[in-house]
Amino acid sequence: MVMKLLEKDNLPLYESVASRLTQMIEQHTFKTGDRLPSVRRLSEQMSVSITTVMEAYRVLENRGVVEARPQSGFYVLPTLNNGLPEPDTTAPESEPTVVNVGEISRRLLLDTAKPELLQLGVAIPNPALLPVEKLNKAMVTAIRNHPVAATSYDIPPGLDQLRVQTARRAMHAGCTLSPDDIIATVGASEAIHLALRATCNPGDTIAIETPIYYGILRAIEQLNLRVLEIPTHPRDGISLEALSYALEHNTIHACMVVSNFNNPLGSCIPNDRKRQLVAMLAERNIPLLEDDIYGEIHFGTERPKVCKAYDSDGNVLLCSSFTKTLAPGYRVGWIAPGRYKNKVERLKLASTLATPSITQMAVAEFLANGGYDHHLRRIRQVYARQTISVSHAISQYFPQDTRVTRPAGGTVLWVELPEYVDSIKLYEQALLAGMTIAPGPVFSANRKYKNFIRLSVSFWSDEVDRALQRLAQLVIKMR
Amino acid sequence: MVMKLLEKDNLPLYESVASRLTQMIEQHTFKTGDRLPSVRRLSEQMSVSITTVMEAYRVLENRGVVEARPQSGFYVLPTLNNGLPEPDTTAPESEPTVVNVGEISRRLLLDTAKPELLQLGVAIPNPALLPVEKLNKAMVTAIRNHPVAATSYDIPPGLDQLRVQTARRAMHAGCTLSPDDIIATVGASEAIHLALRATCNPGDTIAIETPIYYGILRAIEQLNLRVLEIPTHPRDGISLEALSYALEHNTIHACMVVSNFNNPLGSCIPNDRKRQLVAMLAERNIPLLEDDIYGEIHFGTERPKVCKAYDSDGNVLLCSSFTKTLAPGYRVGWIAPGRYKNKVERLKLASTLATPSITQMAVAEFLANGGYDHHLRRIRQVYARQTISVSHAISQYFPQDTRVTRPAGGTVLWVELPEYVDSIKLYEQALLAGMTIAPGPVFSANRKYKNFIRLSVSFWSDEVDRALQRLAQLVIKMR
Repeated sequence: MVMKLLEKDNLPLYESVASRLTQMIEQHTFKTGDRLPSVRRLSEQMSVSITTVMEAYRVLENRGVVEARPQSGFYVLPTLNNGLPEPDTTAPESEPTVVNVGEISRRLLLDTAKPELLQLGVAIPNPALLPVEKLNKAMVTAIRNHPVAATSYDIPPGLDQLRVQTARRAMHAGCTLSPDDIIATVGASEAIHLALRATCNPGDTIAIETPIYYGILRAIEQLNLRVLEIPTHPRDGISLEALSYALEHNTIHACMVVSNFNNPLGSCIPNDRKRQLVAMLAERNIPLLEDDIYGEIHFGTERPKVCKAYDSDGNVLLCSSFTKTLAPGYRVGWIAPGRYKNKVERLKLASTLATPSITQMAVAEFLANGGYDHHLRRIRQVYARQTISVSHAISQYFPQDTRVTRPAGGTVLWVELPEYVDSIKLYEQALLAGMTIAPGPVFSANRKYKNFIRLSVSFWSDEVDRALQRLAQLVIKMR
Repeated sequence: MVMKLLEKDNLPLYESVASRLTQMIEQHTFKTGDRLPSVRRLSEQMSVSITTVMEAYRVLENRGVVEARPQSGFYVLPTLNNGLPEPDTTAPESEPTVVNVGEISRRLLLDTAKPELLQLGVAIPNPALLPVEKLNKAMVTAIRNHPVAATSYDIPPGLDQLRVQTARRAMHAGCTLSPDDIIATVGASEAIHLALRATCNPGDTIAIETPIYYGILRAIEQLNLRVLEIPTHPRDGISLEALSYALEHNTIHACMVVSNFNNPLGSCIPNDRKRQLVAMLAERNIPLLEDDIYGEIHFGTERPKVCKAYDSDGNVLLCSSFTKTLAPGYRVGWIAPGRYKNKVERLKLASTLATPSITQMAVAEFLANGGYDHHLRRIRQVYARQTISVSHAISQYFPQDTRVTRPAGGTVLWVELPEYVDSIKLYEQALLAGMTIAPGPVFSANRKYKNFIRLSVSFWSDEVDRALQRLAQLVIKMR
């Protein structure tokens, strides 16, 4: 088995090695539990350096594909490709509609406050994975360094240091932003809300990926916008072909995607399709709203780019936050609103006026000195592993005609259950059985996805495993 | 001079004594610099106890009317009644209008970030009067007591402890609120924005006091509402007679007042008129939006009540915050939205989602253990004195036909300059002369008040005194 590998598509050599190994695992050349070739052996077989192979194994370890056993070698872990098929590309209604995500999405949020429930339904980070201690230290440092500023107004665009750090990080996403391009917000939620208000008027129609985070639907609902749901592929995100058709046949005022690791679908728009999407919309002068809160939680080595990276005329409004990776409760988010900057700033002044200063300071301090990259590496690894664990449990316990996504990042799985399942009823039964799940209809303006649920991979334990077993029993009983 | 004083109108006896003394000072029975009767003497003259007189003098001292000189007695300070008349009741247009407070209000805010300018134009608290150290300690305590919660989501209605403390404080304003009646917000700004969205749709008309804080006008503008400005008395606030007439002749969807120490007018609606206002609107089922952020900064002993105190059917949406008294940068505000609670909560979820937890914790901790009442007494005294100082400087330096308000609380004065003055031009000139002022037109939807300015009393020093002298020169040169 000698193969010549070349650097292609700008991929580093170790990525090619990793990808070749992944392929062999997927084709069952190596099965779960198998020991993989030693580093030296593989280096000879593939005619690459020892270092390259080491790097490739590190990558696969990070992705949760292999595990290193000391003094022994690398072993194949259970894979995401667990035998269950993925859901199909979604098939929404072709007419714009008003939104009503109703009470369930609110109840879901309120459920998060109940410590007696296993939180499988909400996409909140696992508190054990937040750098609580370091963050609290960063807060104390911020107070010490700026005792008065910490309590004073911080008028938009927001704290300088935070915007500098944010602009630097955006480089990883292929994006050249200056601190002046960024406005601090109260979480990505406010960023999205402002982006919607800056680009749409009541009654306007916005094209969106489907399924999509219910918080986005709720914002759209409260602003009295209409949505046109666009078919979305479980790995590649919004269908450009369908969007193109929709743009021809409807008056669309804006388009919104969760570009990287869509919540709940897990899709990540490939970079070249991001470029096409941006061009397609710019041509028609239709603003693109982009939510990238999961972009940093990628299981592969490369952070996926953002659509904003391909934006040359300010047509993309990029929304993100440090809520999923650092501190949900700090509510530090940001928006790079392109040519809508003035409008967004005015809307922000007229609603929340300023973002709290002290939380911005603590996040800026953490980004500068807290080891954010180290922290990210750690949580990526854990979420990657837990994605596999939850996925594996599903394939073990759930009926055979269940389908499940194979996300390359983020913290959720999207599960298509047999058609007879009513996920709202399942949600009620799951609550009684001590856990939350997110029923499919809250992710659709048209209340589709009756037999879908979203499961969080933020938590994994024997208890979660048993809970999934109970959940599977509830599903089976529904037949 | 023997007078029999009785407890009447539920006023404590010392208030009657204080009010009698105030009257004598206003009638120049005692002039600035005069020594007042000794405690023993006054106790005999008025047939009240020594304690009552002591309390009356303490009250007058707090209000900045008298000053105690050790080993000597109480002396009359320069009074607010400085010889200059007050402005008349305002006379706005009688037709609803769209709002455009434009760029100046934004520039005013941005000016606050310039440390080289004397901040006479903005209604921000004097940082030297904020309990920065204690607050920072409260923050550290909060982090220590709740290391994880401090970084976790705090879903609406918001932090329990904060809402409990807020409900307790509302008692001082005559208001029986339960923690469940309250939703935490990102400053009073978000509270007002949510109240507007919960009660009005784009194109609706809202009746407001005039002049009114430009932040409220900005929120109204961005929500595409129309306003009907109602004549407002410089001491008694919104004219109920004019409002009644307006309600007969227009379709009004909501009414908004800054009930206590309107910014910029300084007016405080008397309690019995608050009751009438609430009844008048309840009868017509028109919601009342009430902003009370200055209510705690009263110069008299009694905290004025809020309109909400007279609300029996949930028709009043009370908005406030700890921004003016504690920490502008924490952005901890709240709303008691009455029967609009569900709607406000949904709107909050769909915009900022949650209010940061850690700042709520710090404020709750400070309210519980930081000596908030002691702190309030101190700042009331300082702002009362500085109100007199600034007012006095105005009467000394400004042209004779200047008028100025006599607020009984808050941190601003509203100054009517001679008719030839263009306050926007004056604003530009004042900037060049090293200070900010707030030009009148930003406080009106119709850009009235061309020859008015708002001056902050947050700062007082020889430097401020000299600045006011320079400002007066600029005014005089405009003739």
